[in-house]
Amino acid sequence: MTKHHLPATPETVHWGYFSRSLTPVLTLKSGDSAVIETITHHANDDYERMIAGDAAAEEIFLWTKDAKTLRRRGAGPTEGPFTHGDGEGLGVHLLTGPIAIEGAEPGDIIEVRVIDTYPRPSANPGYAGRFFGSNPAANWGFQYNDLVEGPTPRETVTIYELDMAEAAVKALYSYVWTPQTDPDGIVHATIDYPGVRVDHATITKKNDVLAGIKVPARLHFGTMGLAPAEVDCVSTIPPNYTGGNMDDWRIAKGARMYYPVAVPGGLFSCGDAHASQGDSELSGTAVEISLTGEFEFILHKKADLPGTVLEGLTHPLLETEDLWSVYGFSVTNYLAELGPDPQQEILTRGSLDTAMRDAFRKLRRFLMTVHKLSEDEAISLMSVAADFAVTQVVDANWGVTGSIRKAIFAGRTSV
Amino acid sequence: MTKHHLPATPETVHWGYFSRSLTPVLTLKSGDSAVIETITHHANDDYERMIAGDAAAEEIFLWTKDAKTLRRRGAGPTEGPFTHGDGEGLGVHLLTGPIAIEGAEPGDIIEVRVIDTYPRPSANPGYAGRFFGSNPAANWGFQYNDLVEGPTPRETVTIYELDMAEAAVKALYSYVWTPQTDPDGIVHATIDYPGVRVDHATITKKNDVLAGIKVPARLHFGTMGLAPAEVDCVSTIPPNYTGGNMDDWRIAKGARMYYPVAVPGGLFSCGDAHASQGDSELSGTAVEISLTGEFEFILHKKADLPGTVLEGLTHPLLETEDLWSVYGFSVTNYLAELGPDPQQEILTRGSLDTAMRDAFRKLRRFLMTVHKLSEDEAISLMSVAADFAVTQVVDANWGVTGSIRKAIFAGRTSV
Repeated sequence: MTKHHLPATPETVHWGYFSRSLTPVLTLKSGDSAVIETITHHANDDYERMIAGDAAAEEIFLWTKDAKTLRRRGAGPTEGPFTHGDGEGLGVHLLTGPIAIEGAEPGDIIEVRVIDTYPRPSANPGYAGRFFGSNPAANWGFQYNDLVEGPTPRETVTIYELDMAEAAVKALYSYVWTPQTDPDGIVHATIDYPGVRVDHATITKKNDVLAGIKVPARLHFGTMGLAPAEVDCVSTIPPNYTGGNMDDWRIAKGARMYYPVAVPGGLFSCGDAHASQGDSELSGTAVEISLTGEFEFILHKKADLPGTVLEGLTHPLLETEDLWSVYGFSVTNYLAELGPDPQQEILTRGSLDTAMRDAFRKLRRFLMTVHKLSEDEAISLMSVAADFAVTQVVDANWGVTGSIRKAIFAGRTSV
Repeated sequence: MTKHHLPATPETVHWGYFSRSLTPVLTLKSGDSAVIETITHHANDDYERMIAGDAAAEEIFLWTKDAKTLRRRGAGPTEGPFTHGDGEGLGVHLLTGPIAIEGAEPGDIIEVRVIDTYPRPSANPGYAGRFFGSNPAANWGFQYNDLVEGPTPRETVTIYELDMAEAAVKALYSYVWTPQTDPDGIVHATIDYPGVRVDHATITKKNDVLAGIKVPARLHFGTMGLAPAEVDCVSTIPPNYTGGNMDDWRIAKGARMYYPVAVPGGLFSCGDAHASQGDSELSGTAVEISLTGEFEFILHKKADLPGTVLEGLTHPLLETEDLWSVYGFSVTNYLAELGPDPQQEILTRGSLDTAMRDAFRKLRRFLMTVHKLSEDEAISLMSVAADFAVTQVVDANWGVTGSIRKAIFAGRTSV
């Protein structure tokens, strides 16, 4: 078992997309662990607190008239002229990876154990050792066209501090997004392209927001998953059968995630870390922070799955100390189901009703296949003991989490 | 402060409907408490365990060719010929009440504190002292038209036992619903009218279902609420702004529910008790049991609401030791919003998407009005700290529960 370290550098990150064609930045054997650094794509909401002095972050976010370290940001067009920029921001998350698991093939399952998480401290001497994150109430948020105070519409960014001693986040200040002109001259009237540096001379800071309010931390990676097979370059926004932008705060320290392998090596990437998030991620984002994760990777070969908790698994599965969770999506596998342009089509398909349907079916299958229940038993048990939560209503492919407590099965001789 | 006792008798129950015209069976003063017995409308799924030997239950459920103690069951027609029976089963819950609170007027809020809950033991000597409940996977369940095992469609009833020493429920046996002929000669091919006695000679019991599985008890009343003003006789199935069939297991011992008063006296009724239920109540029912509740009632006059947690409240609000919850419905007030025949129209309107919208707006209002947050603060806080859950997808007016933890506000000098 080897323990690897994967820093976030311009060479180890990709921005806004998963791709089966990316060359792995690290190749592991099953059983290996890796400490992986991730940097939030919202760091430029407050450059001074989240980028300045951090050499890697500075380099990754570098964008001047003459230089842009990471040109492509998103799965969209890479030939201009651009509306938003290279990649068009069709996918926004700055991910570290991909990591290949030796011997992983389609049909296998990769287990990712979250051993621990470590927030990345500010490297600005003025804020040394402190942890900051950003929570934009964005145009893709559930509230955007449904605001009661003016001016409408608006996007408001709230900067938070994570206090690790208290294990809580507190708001520091907020500002309303103002049009930002990027170094290439494109004006971003709304938050439509990741990594645009907010010029704080153009904004008005509102201090004392959420005064006295402390929110318990829920450190987790919003986006973790494998590369899908159907399309080469896939936006990071909609979660799908190989995981991705799941945005479930339960996927935290101690969790085990199981992902179906769709391409050789699996190609795991992670990022989009959150200091805290509620079920629904209502405003479009959580408290977006830079986070380092310690993970262990275990490859489960297809032939070994029968008789285990992974038998027949075709979608992400969470196991924590207390529960199992499956993830219902508005469209189960949107890349396969939505015709010639699924990445555009999914943008109009978000619905909790279909996500609930999907979560029901996935949890039923899990109970029948893994716990050997009849359909009638599975349905009764779900009604009296399974809890369905609104995972998120902001990632195009909306989510419902279906969870069942492990203790319920303690007296049963199954898995 | 007076402590009342309200037994369940033919005179103290009403079946399947709320009504502003019902004569109160008890009138209380604010501050009074009452021990209220309720009997589950599913007791006849297993007459021997849940009715036999219990004089009150036997009398309430009495239905022979010559006598039917409670003729009307539902808010539907009461003049035959009937398709299903008197009241047509448009509303199914056997409720105890109504209770009037002296001085309650429209615009006031009635607070109902759940002091304790006591399951009603079987009175059959063969099962003396034991507690039983029924969980039908019914035709109105989320699974009904989406079954993978045959025969389809089918309704399966699972009988559970509640073990109070272990505080858990365990399945005893199940059976597939067979057409049941009621004493008036109407054949019930599906579960379409409450209180029809299942002739156990016509069913095939399946034992050893859910073997080894124990589900932690979550004792609560699925239906509690006040009479609405818009319509005289209202089905108990869809929850609405005065409460009713909320089906949230969090409304348990220790909870305080706040309901807006719509008619003089408020007219509180309760029933539809559950030994356990998951978020979604997927199969259409929970573990339906007979339960006695000890409640305390407090009247909050309209003039006293400003500056309290109840300011501006126009819908049910839950307060527990740990959290506040609001309830989003597919249609906020379906009786007022759905035209000339709202009780039929609501049957086609169940959607989590609109329920999520309603829950978002209600929680935003709560945070802005009660906690004095700006809209931007409320939205950011909801995104990072509020949890939205699927309350139920089976009560016509589907529900999403939005919850925020009280501890978050500990450092704030608001309510």
